[in-house]
Amino acid sequence: MILFLNDYSEGAHPRVLEAMQAGNLSQCCGYGLDEVSLRAHERVRALIGCPEADVHLLVGGTSANLIALTAFLRPHEAVVCADCGHINTHETGAVEGAGHKILSVPAENGKLTAGALRAIVATHTDEHMVRPRVAFISNASELGTVYSLDELRALRAACDELGMYLYMDGARLCSALASEGCDVTFADLPRLCDAFYIGGTKNGALLGEAMVVVHPSLKPDFRYLIKNRGGMLAKGFVVGRQFDVLLADGLCMDLARHANAMAQVVRAALTARGVPFFVHTATNQLFPILTQAQMDFLSRDFGFQVWSPLPDGRTAVRFVTSWATPEQNARALADAIARMP
Amino acid sequence: MILFLNDYSEGAHPRVLEAMQAGNLSQCCGYGLDEVSLRAHERVRALIGCPEADVHLLVGGTSANLIALTAFLRPHEAVVCADCGHINTHETGAVEGAGHKILSVPAENGKLTAGALRAIVATHTDEHMVRPRVAFISNASELGTVYSLDELRALRAACDELGMYLYMDGARLCSALASEGCDVTFADLPRLCDAFYIGGTKNGALLGEAMVVVHPSLKPDFRYLIKNRGGMLAKGFVVGRQFDVLLADGLCMDLARHANAMAQVVRAALTARGVPFFVHTATNQLFPILTQAQMDFLSRDFGFQVWSPLPDGRTAVRFVTSWATPEQNARALADAIARMP
Amino acid sequence: MILFLNDYSEGAHPRVLEAMQAGNLSQCCGYGLDEVSLRAHERVRALIGCPEADVHLLVGGTSANLIALTAFLRPHEAVVCADCGHINTHETGAVEGAGHKILSVPAENGKLTAGALRAIVATHTDEHMVRPRVAFISNASELGTVYSLDELRALRAACDELGMYLYMDGARLCSALASEGCDVTFADLPRLCDAFYIGGTKNGALLGEAMVVVHPSLKPDFRYLIKNRGGMLAKGFVVGRQFDVLLADGLCMDLARHANAMAQVVRAALTARGVPFFVHTATNQLFPILTQAQMDFLSRDFGFQVWSPLPDGRTAVRFVTSWATPEQNARALADAIARMP
Amino acid sequence: MILFLNDYSEGAHPRVLEAMQAGNLSQCCGYGLDEVSLRAHERVRALIGCPEADVHLLVGGTSANLIALTAFLRPHEAVVCADCGHINTHETGAVEGAGHKILSVPAENGKLTAGALRAIVATHTDEHMVRPRVAFISNASELGTVYSLDELRALRAACDELGMYLYMDGARLCSALASEGCDVTFADLPRLCDAFYIGGTKNGALLGEAMVVVHPSLKPDFRYLIKNRGGMLAKGFVVGRQFDVLLADGLCMDLARHANAMAQVVRAALTARGVPFFVHTATNQLFPILTQAQMDFLSRDFGFQVWSPLPDGRTAVRFVTSWATPEQNARALADAIARMP
Repeated sequence: MILFLNDYSEGAHPRVLEAMQAGNLSQCCGYGLDEVSLRAHERVRALIGCPEADVHLLVGGTSANLIALTAFLRPHEAVVCADCGHINTHETGAVEGAGHKILSVPAENGKLTAGALRAIVATHTDEHMVRPRVAFISNASELGTVYSLDELRALRAACDELGMYLYMDGARLCSALASEGCDVTFADLPRLCDAFYIGGTKNGALLGEAMVVVHPSLKPDFRYLIKNRGGMLAKGFVVGRQFDVLLADGLCMDLARHANAMAQVVRAALTARGVPFFVHTATNQLFPILTQAQMDFLSRDFGFQVWSPLPDGRTAVRFVTSWATPEQNARALADAIARMP
Repeated sequence: MILFLNDYSEGAHPRVLEAMQAGNLSQCCGYGLDEVSLRAHERVRALIGCPEADVHLLVGGTSANLIALTAFLRPHEAVVCADCGHINTHETGAVEGAGHKILSVPAENGKLTAGALRAIVATHTDEHMVRPRVAFISNASELGTVYSLDELRALRAACDELGMYLYMDGARLCSALASEGCDVTFADLPRLCDAFYIGGTKNGALLGEAMVVVHPSLKPDFRYLIKNRGGMLAKGFVVGRQFDVLLADGLCMDLARHANAMAQVVRAALTARGVPFFVHTATNQLFPILTQAQMDFLSRDFGFQVWSPLPDGRTAVRFVTSWATPEQNARALADAIARMP
Repeated sequence: MILFLNDYSEGAHPRVLEAMQAGNLSQCCGYGLDEVSLRAHERVRALIGCPEADVHLLVGGTSANLIALTAFLRPHEAVVCADCGHINTHETGAVEGAGHKILSVPAENGKLTAGALRAIVATHTDEHMVRPRVAFISNASELGTVYSLDELRALRAACDELGMYLYMDGARLCSALASEGCDVTFADLPRLCDAFYIGGTKNGALLGEAMVVVHPSLKPDFRYLIKNRGGMLAKGFVVGRQFDVLLADGLCMDLARHANAMAQVVRAALTARGVPFFVHTATNQLFPILTQAQMDFLSRDFGFQVWSPLPDGRTAVRFVTSWATPEQNARALADAIARMP
Repeated sequence: MILFLNDYSEGAHPRVLEAMQAGNLSQCCGYGLDEVSLRAHERVRALIGCPEADVHLLVGGTSANLIALTAFLRPHEAVVCADCGHINTHETGAVEGAGHKILSVPAENGKLTAGALRAIVATHTDEHMVRPRVAFISNASELGTVYSLDELRALRAACDELGMYLYMDGARLCSALASEGCDVTFADLPRLCDAFYIGGTKNGALLGEAMVVVHPSLKPDFRYLIKNRGGMLAKGFVVGRQFDVLLADGLCMDLARHANAMAQVVRAALTARGVPFFVHTATNQLFPILTQAQMDFLSRDFGFQVWSPLPDGRTAVRFVTSWATPEQNARALADAIARMP
């Protein structure tokens, strides 16, 4: 059985593990203040071309979103996101657990639009309603789609106009930026977003996400919030060493390109068979629409996720590739697709 | 410079890293539901002789305490602890951040006593005050002291009488149970505590703590709370593999014994010099009282923590050993102590 | 200018004020434990025929909802409501501020249906999502509509099946039960709802709502939660005396019938003119659809609320009557409606 | 039985009730934005000589403290108070329920000192501990003592030096300012405090406290927080009318002077008998130390509170007078004191 269930089924990229092995018994400072972690921070700042950004290495995606929104919002302030936003659907109410309402709006291709943002903010007019304060986007989105530069500029302009912050969940950011046709680069992000994180867990690390805080108002006391919400590792260097390697010579983007390329192998096979898609993507997630017979055929050898049953009896499913997907596995799936009923 | 600053300065025990390396590229289930994690759960249950206990592998100490108390308490319910309790002093208000008051009482040798517990509960009589509901203890305590079986039985009896739960923070539990003179075993814990955790971060793991929930009332929906508070790793197997090794053949207790033995090397040197102690311990933390000249002398080659300046001009300091402390380092410190002014 | 803006523009019914005057200088027990408050509790229990219900007199609607949901839910548990539910739209995130996600579903005529409840619960399958635990309904709804006995039975059955509690916001409960065609009585409520409140603020009191907790699991420590959330008045008798009068001889239902009758005067005038309605109601709220010319005409002498601009240029507006609406005011509005363009 | 149990046993001053009666059936704006409420705001600003202060009329003391601290603090920030502070002891964890740690320090005569404030702040040095941000004082204190101008200036200076806000709970502020020897006036408060409230509940109102926010950083969105925490009354004018009367021509200070004078009648009787005091006060609370025989004698005809049993078998008790205490009642108690064994 070969799994295409998600992008967190394997451990870390071998070079990451090597680095952890190499430094394992050297003594170093705790709580993420060690030299290697600080060097990883520098690598992030260099990558995005923003020397004044604050960088914090965090444990995982839900923790990162929870800490960021706890830090950025006052109790009556809300975050706006697409209805499929991870914070809205799959974080067990973590943001509400921190006291904040999530205002969800209909997504377009999995994405928040400036128009939807403006529309929901316009209905929040006085102190009997929450005050929308942060716009949350995932890039790549939960549906594998990618924000274009124009879309991000439109969101940035809307946020500026509305007095809001723009925050990007980048659990799959490298896959997004590495995707074909993406016109956004790391260097664009500090101008477009007030804060965002670069995902490690789904891109070669055992665990860890690199939070980047750009807007000066969002910086103060962020480490207090990390600790306050249980997100500060005593051995912070465990994450630091991983990002140090991932960012050292573009490994993170190499890994994302590989994940995308493996998805492309599968995508091509699906397209060749004329299989329709629930949503069109260029990243490491694919959402083809299969017949029951096709699902039965493929599920003999491959693990994938049922995404959404459709009214006509067919089913949208999800295949996910990753940095760890061997090309032979992608080819095997492509072959099976070619042979499926 | 040799550091005796804390017990989280190094990475993981080599066997732990080996196990992570070995399973690194095999695909497995996420969120801690993989086979190795489930096997680690079984090992915990076997270790404590309690097949019906629930086990959850968590990320770190603050996160573990935060999740447990979030799960165990209603909003008006409070946790009682010694004034030096970690949740009271060094978790940046994480428990209050989850909405609960901490009632702190004067510690005796770093420990909560049944008498102090009864006394504070007695003053909480009606709905204008919080309702004390969980007694929190750290074992070993923040001052390196260890609860005796009698002390734990007295706390258990008090909790039963008062309608309270007893929860143990076991960040240094193995060191406590491995310490000379300790008459408590793992098998005692499920009878004494309603929940507790076995610390990994400070005892050979890169990160991770094994939460054990014994009381049936505290079990429901615990995994929801883990996710809700940002403590669920996508690659939960990262912690599972570590505990699988640590618990496989008694490694965790071997490591704790080593840490304690290294502390004993230093303790003996201090005692031989007639150095007084701020508090007497049998675990991996030492709190000698040094003169300024002694501090100056030792700090040339060794890192240690200033704990508390004393009125007479001397200073209580803290030396911490760990599973990773090479015997030659402990000997080097012992030698320096013998030579200090 | 005669206001039909809402049902909280005037003070208290004269008999209520008289009672407050009469007892004003007698000394009595604080925090709602005085004799008159306890008698008001008894009157509530008699009214609903449920001697074992717990009654708590609270300050206002948001506070009542906030306290109830804080008391009833664990942190990962969510409340389901219609998208127009007051807690979802007009309480400034108070429920989220208490840590709980609100799952909103499309309303039917302002009401939550058993089908919508079942559908959203069905999508919440594991610990990565919140656990739906309370179904919230407002009766009368925010759109002035009333739940029928069949609708409530269907919701009760769904809640039983789904392991959920049914909670009713009764800010306008008397108006609902007094409305023409309503087949639900006070005596039905303890069998149908696990908890609900009987609104005072909008039905003759200066302030105050009577919370009724029926389900034994929801009763413990409710007074702690009232205090914990700032809802316990030192002079609790201020609310007690008001409910004592309102419930003494059916005054609360007399007031609700008056409010409904005044609405009927206006409704009849609108119907006579062939004015369409945004939603059909039988309570003290009316939602006619007016042309701009009609709005301009009526707004010269009457205050009312713009509810929702419609695509065709017309506007749904809201007229609200109350216990305090003089018949001449309702007639004046009816006359103007007859004369409007 | 004549009660000296507390200062909230009676309703409102007759003039307050008259005003409520007079405006009862006039229609007015909701949520505290009516003309009379706004006039009450103006009266507060005039009283304290601070035209730029924001004023918010709130429901009660716990609610006021809860809302203020929710508005003023970020999640990792703490409030420092004397150990006897109301928020620390008798608000059922409301402040912690809003997510904030309370750092309590030993009180001197019921008061927080600048020295104790500096000392506790000095121990909070990094992100592993909460950040002390607000100093909380009650004036009069929970022990009936009053802050002198020098004491408040010292606290102000400490707060300025430490980057903290000074917040005063004024549940009994009028009694404090009206007390013999008090050298602080209303006009001093805006210079000394960043925010404070003037208590109504214990000084002639049915309910209500007037929150004053002076520091510009604490003003934004305060009304959102009132609503978010359930403290906004639909009929806000109910509190507005009361403060309008209490502040119109000095009534609030007249009432406080009366309460203090009645306490003085009792105090003189106790002093004449040589009864010692647990703490010396000049306000409406008295804490004499009685023998069991004296308690038995007095409790036949008078209600008072057992405050604290003393080691020598005697008991500190509390007598509280109020605006509503008839002189004959105070005299009756004084007479009984003269006759007690």
